[in-house]
Amino acid sequence: MQRREFIQQAAALSVLPVLGAPAYRRAPLAVDGTRLNAWLTTFNGIGRTAGGINRVAYSEADLAGRAFTLDLFRQAGLTPRIDAAGNIMARIAGGSRTTLPPILIGSHVDSVTDGGNFDGPVGSFAAIEVARTIRAANHRLRHPLDVVVWQNEEGGTIGSKIAIGELSRADLDKVARSGKTIRDGIALIGGDVSRLGEVVRRKGDIACYIELHIEQGGLLEKAGLQIGVVEGIVGLRWMEVGIKGMSNHAGATPMDQRHDAMLAAAKFTVAVTDATRAEPGRQVATIGRITAMPNTTNVIAGDVVLTVDLRDLNTATLARFQQRFEQLGVEIGAATGTTFTFRALVDSEPAIADARVMSWIEQSAATLGLTRQRMPSGAGHDAQEVARIAPMGMIFIPSVGGISHSPREFSNAFDITNGANVLLHAVLAADGA
Amino acid sequence: MQRREFIQQAAALSVLPVLGAPAYRRAPLAVDGTRLNAWLTTFNGIGRTAGGINRVAYSEADLAGRAFTLDLFRQAGLTPRIDAAGNIMARIAGGSRTTLPPILIGSHVDSVTDGGNFDGPVGSFAAIEVARTIRAANHRLRHPLDVVVWQNEEGGTIGSKIAIGELSRADLDKVARSGKTIRDGIALIGGDVSRLGEVVRRKGDIACYIELHIEQGGLLEKAGLQIGVVEGIVGLRWMEVGIKGMSNHAGATPMDQRHDAMLAAAKFTVAVTDATRAEPGRQVATIGRITAMPNTTNVIAGDVVLTVDLRDLNTATLARFQQRFEQLGVEIGAATGTTFTFRALVDSEPAIADARVMSWIEQSAATLGLTRQRMPSGAGHDAQEVARIAPMGMIFIPSVGGISHSPREFSNAFDITNGANVLLHAVLAADGA
Repeated sequence: MQRREFIQQAAALSVLPVLGAPAYRRAPLAVDGTRLNAWLTTFNGIGRTAGGINRVAYSEADLAGRAFTLDLFRQAGLTPRIDAAGNIMARIAGGSRTTLPPILIGSHVDSVTDGGNFDGPVGSFAAIEVARTIRAANHRLRHPLDVVVWQNEEGGTIGSKIAIGELSRADLDKVARSGKTIRDGIALIGGDVSRLGEVVRRKGDIACYIELHIEQGGLLEKAGLQIGVVEGIVGLRWMEVGIKGMSNHAGATPMDQRHDAMLAAAKFTVAVTDATRAEPGRQVATIGRITAMPNTTNVIAGDVVLTVDLRDLNTATLARFQQRFEQLGVEIGAATGTTFTFRALVDSEPAIADARVMSWIEQSAATLGLTRQRMPSGAGHDAQEVARIAPMGMIFIPSVGGISHSPREFSNAFDITNGANVLLHAVLAADGA
Repeated sequence: MQRREFIQQAAALSVLPVLGAPAYRRAPLAVDGTRLNAWLTTFNGIGRTAGGINRVAYSEADLAGRAFTLDLFRQAGLTPRIDAAGNIMARIAGGSRTTLPPILIGSHVDSVTDGGNFDGPVGSFAAIEVARTIRAANHRLRHPLDVVVWQNEEGGTIGSKIAIGELSRADLDKVARSGKTIRDGIALIGGDVSRLGEVVRRKGDIACYIELHIEQGGLLEKAGLQIGVVEGIVGLRWMEVGIKGMSNHAGATPMDQRHDAMLAAAKFTVAVTDATRAEPGRQVATIGRITAMPNTTNVIAGDVVLTVDLRDLNTATLARFQQRFEQLGVEIGAATGTTFTFRALVDSEPAIADARVMSWIEQSAATLGLTRQRMPSGAGHDAQEVARIAPMGMIFIPSVGGISHSPREFSNAFDITNGANVLLHAVLAADGA
């Protein structure tokens, strides 16, 4: 049925006024959506537990998922190799007379703990299917086409960080969710930490990077649109906020003699939310974690620790809100007889999508008759790393209910097929540009 | 120095215009404050750990504390016995020709986990010292004087509940903080659960009950007063509030599409505090415990559970605020796209002090030249149980910094001596009344 739906959409193209339609329209290509979705269905059994998909990097299930993925490359007529970082790579050679840099497409196949089957595999398998389609059609690209499956995206975009030379030696000793160090994990999946320098790409090494991914939010579904053209991946500031009050008897301490850290935390949570919502823009701030001490029904909390997750596409906006939140801490501390301290946990900078890559994605969606909008990615992706050395773009497809990192994560097969076709045509557009 | 201070205060009495001074003014009695405070100093070594005093009921340290206390009774010339409930009791006989019921005084010697040395022992040892002083002076009371050290006050006023016939058989199987059941604990401390019925007192069995205790709050210290005349022990309502939202990605979910249980919890905490403070009166409400799920920096909380501890001297006020809080849950739930559910954890009714007992305490403080005020007890005490069958009153002395249930709990020796003397004179007034 999904296949039929796509054919209907493709058929609808003929009545659309397509301005400046590129040369490849003469031989329109389309992926095999049934095949692509069948791969995802089979993959759904790997690492499936009662709690959800558990293919955390370097686990047995991750190894099984990578073995399955390597087989898909081979079925596609590609020759995959595992580079020193542990990323899976395969290439379709470019035109013989050019020395153009490769177009890079791909995603990841590792998952979070108790996650779903769509975050990563959709983009990875679609990239393989796109390469297979181009190869099967004997369509000769000018650029080489590299397909990549990055290792350990969910544990901190490790594979892509290594590929741009941004993972430190110290990071190798950090312990991943599997319980193994990244160093041991890389060895386990067939990499070689002594040769990490060999895989580092620099500016100019990659023509562009395009990644298809599920949205992980509800914007597209809410708007009733089929394709998201990602404008960039938001930067984030993670702050740990410590609030020091005074623990005391809940019955014997009058309301006006309290130094209630829980009340201060509540006022701060409301104020941070109000401040974030008070301005136009797509900035988001979340208090997701809280610990109160002693955390007892009949004792006024003396200490609270909470976290703020602040995200936006604009660095100046991040700095402005961060400063505003710290000011709110000072004000609320004074009003409640408590003291706020702020500690930076993680800072990551926004990664802006390349204007030309966005236009290729947009044109491809238009050519295929798919509804679309520009939007930020609130979640992090390998694309944010690659953006530091190459023009980057991302294609989003709807997530049902806006749910991800959950066993309830789901995207419809027809949307996955649409996304893969947009990726295919964006690659062709990039190659033709 | 504390002794000298009291003598100065006693000397000052002669210049005070005392109206209707009772007969015993002719032979003014005073406790030995030095001896009383020395007992407390020695007791401070029993159950002392790095975290504070740990004499939780039925523990080794509780047994050691009770053995020490039994010895104090004997030193005072009293003959202590352990009743079937495990309470320590001793009696000074009343006038031989009367059949008046006994005046009862006392407190407890068990502690909370990581508590202090003053909550309980002050009132227990002062009661022993008062009896010793009366006995040493050969002052013949009309009523018998019973001194009691209740067992397991901190674990739910167990000893006093048994004494008024309010502990159920099922309660005996509850596990105390020591890890032992109350049933096993009673056997351990020398009681006999098969004979609990024998210790039950009924209305008319006790002339009155007077308990000296540290304030456990900062009202007296803040007001610069020496004695608190307790008007009653507040009733309480403990509510567990469950807030159901929807867990989602902190980056990918726009601010206006959230069902953020943490934000709802924060708004509720602020609203409960504001509502409680908005009215005159001494009602208090505390959100002391919170658990958020999944409690992760980059995930919007889908569920929060928190507790509300509401206290007041007036049952109607408790009901009115409880209803208001539930209404706030409905309103905030509607505003935040979350659902609130309320579950009653504990309901306890206010225990009002007897007007005559209050007046005896007030007169005694006045006679001794001590500054005083009427005030509620925000904390629970054995007195709230005894109040159900007998006229009850409590004497409070200042807690430095208003701190209790903490190793930093402290009351000054001169305040303890003052409190014991007020107890002594209140007993004499009660006996003369």
